Amino acid sequence: MRATMIYGAGDVRVEDAPYPTLIHPTDAIVRIVRACVCGSDLHGYNARTAADPAKAMGHEFIGIVEEIGSAVHKIKVGDFVIAPFAYADNTCEFCCEGLQTSCLHGGFWGNGDVGGGQAEAVRSPFADGTLVPVPGPVDPSLYPSFLALTDVYGTGYHAALKAHVSSATTVTVIGDGAVGLMAVLSAKRLGAERIILMGRHKVRTDLGITFGATDVVAERGAEGIARVLELTHGVGTHTVLEAVGYRDAYDMAVGVVRAGGVISRVGVPQYDDAPIGRASLFGRNITLTGGPAPVRSYIEQLLPDVLSGAVNPGLVFDQTVSLENVADGYRMMADRTALKVIVRP
Amino acid sequence: MRATMIYGAGDVRVEDAPYPTLIHPTDAIVRIVRACVCGSDLHGYNARTAADPAKAMGHEFIGIVEEIGSAVHKIKVGDFVIAPFAYADNTCEFCCEGLQTSCLHGGFWGNGDVGGGQAEAVRSPFADGTLVPVPGPVDPSLYPSFLALTDVYGTGYHAALKAHVSSATTVTVIGDGAVGLMAVLSAKRLGAERIILMGRHKVRTDLGITFGATDVVAERGAEGIARVLELTHGVGTHTVLEAVGYRDAYDMAVGVVRAGGVISRVGVPQYDDAPIGRASLFGRNITLTGGPAPVRSYIEQLLPDVLSGAVNPGLVFDQTVSLENVADGYRMMADRTALKVIVRP
Repeated sequence: MRATMIYGAGDVRVEDAPYPTLIHPTDAIVRIVRACVCGSDLHGYNARTAADPAKAMGHEFIGIVEEIGSAVHKIKVGDFVIAPFAYADNTCEFCCEGLQTSCLHGGFWGNGDVGGGQAEAVRSPFADGTLVPVPGPVDPSLYPSFLALTDVYGTGYHAALKAHVSSATTVTVIGDGAVGLMAVLSAKRLGAERIILMGRHKVRTDLGITFGATDVVAERGAEGIARVLELTHGVGTHTVLEAVGYRDAYDMAVGVVRAGGVISRVGVPQYDDAPIGRASLFGRNITLTGGPAPVRSYIEQLLPDVLSGAVNPGLVFDQTVSLENVADGYRMMADRTALKVIVRP
Repeated sequence: MRATMIYGAGDVRVEDAPYPTLIHPTDAIVRIVRACVCGSDLHGYNARTAADPAKAMGHEFIGIVEEIGSAVHKIKVGDFVIAPFAYADNTCEFCCEGLQTSCLHGGFWGNGDVGGGQAEAVRSPFADGTLVPVPGPVDPSLYPSFLALTDVYGTGYHAALKAHVSSATTVTVIGDGAVGLMAVLSAKRLGAERIILMGRHKVRTDLGITFGATDVVAERGAEGIARVLELTHGVGTHTVLEAVGYRDAYDMAVGVVRAGGVISRVGVPQYDDAPIGRASLFGRNITLTGGPAPVRSYIEQLLPDVLSGAVNPGLVFDQTVSLENVADGYRMMADRTALKVIVRP
């Protein structure tokens, strides 16, 4: 079959790879129907060196179950499934608490002997724990929204949930990428009435307004902070959903969060040390939270509104490429000529 | 009157100072009955330089109201009052949310034209907002517990509340100072059944056991982390209450917190930058919270159990000095020959 590998920075290739086979009795083989390119794929795409080992790519996919191991009891051959971006047994103490991204036996696609989702097929470990079947006949027009459920929608939702967004909280969302826009949608869904979106790509922030943003701040850094403070009579917002991952986004979050408020990060931090002392977080009782979203537990919560058409997170996709042309998808996202790209095997 | 000033490191002096007078109509003059020395007073005591301007000391005191301004309506002359370590109007938007340490008009004792509490008397700004009267006749045997309510008990309670300690959460408390011990008492009060106290002063950790600690870990650094992990089948505790403020305490907190858990800091951080990236906080969905406790809102919650004798936070005091000898109190606390020192004017 054909599968996507990354080598050095900017070097994405589609190559021949062995068709996956069952290894453990809890495995399933999933034929990929659609995958996509993630903003976090770009971290490697931008920063890898030739010395990094080649890596199988893709952690967002939907597909049809082709084969199951002898210990798979819930997932059936023929099921149309949504895969979260991390696989998990869904039975360990962390999974039982809804934190499948800390599953004691789980992991991430494209690592070790588990392939990536930007391919024709993949072996899913812990099929019963990992995969979520879509009930009933599947409407292909919903594929984009199902793909959003594999990662970006659940990730935006995680940011909003961890920040305790409600009708009582004002919200700033930092980042107009797909996760930022999904954070806007999630904040709106949780009742927020004031949602300030920080982003400077008008097409994207316009989509953010569609999802529920009430204000758009295009400025960044000190100017962006000043603008948000101006919009909030000088105090900032109760919650800040940080959907970028770069240090300047963290600094903006610290600048716009209200005393007693919450910064909720879902952009994977591209830094280690940052200020958390008296002047930045402590003195104003700021809470810092977030992390890799346990999308597995959110898919079932969020799927009904997708199936009913109440929400359309699939609007974040604006381009589709064939698997053979996946490198174009990376390039378009890196160049920001695409917001988010579907990959069709 | 006599009042305490600090100059350089280790240089605490009791000096003559003008008796305080009303400045604003919302002020009251409080004659100090007892004050105490705080662990946070030692940060300056240890680290000040001769170049730092002299500063009035003391932010923990109880006393009797001697005089009130024309706009003071709740507090009466003769009231026996407990003062929180920050004064606040208790009417601004932050106070109304219970975050009096971010009061838009509040501040801290011993700054600007507001004196310190290690003195014979002090002017309290916003007397109605700041001071909490003790109802009924006052039993002097409760003075130590009232003093604990001015800061350390509310601060330990804040750590536990912000961490959402409950019967469902395991707890590590870092630090066997007065705040750490109050965090133990607070965690116990909130229902925690497993409370690991990290501290190496046996007299203090024994008191911690009295307050509810179930385990004591005397080791520090990597050894301390290993010991807590050993006690928690390798995963750490749901909550970590960090009551020290030094960077190595933060690093220990990161090492012993369970995935999905909370680090709640109430020791004033003596550092700015620290790791908050993928390996430390983000990858495991760790929440970092805490800050200066809004003790004002906790005094009323915690006072009834103090008055009834259900809890005895005053046990953290093991020494009393006269105001003239306050420098001895600082020295005993800095030398760790005293846990916490009462100052008697």
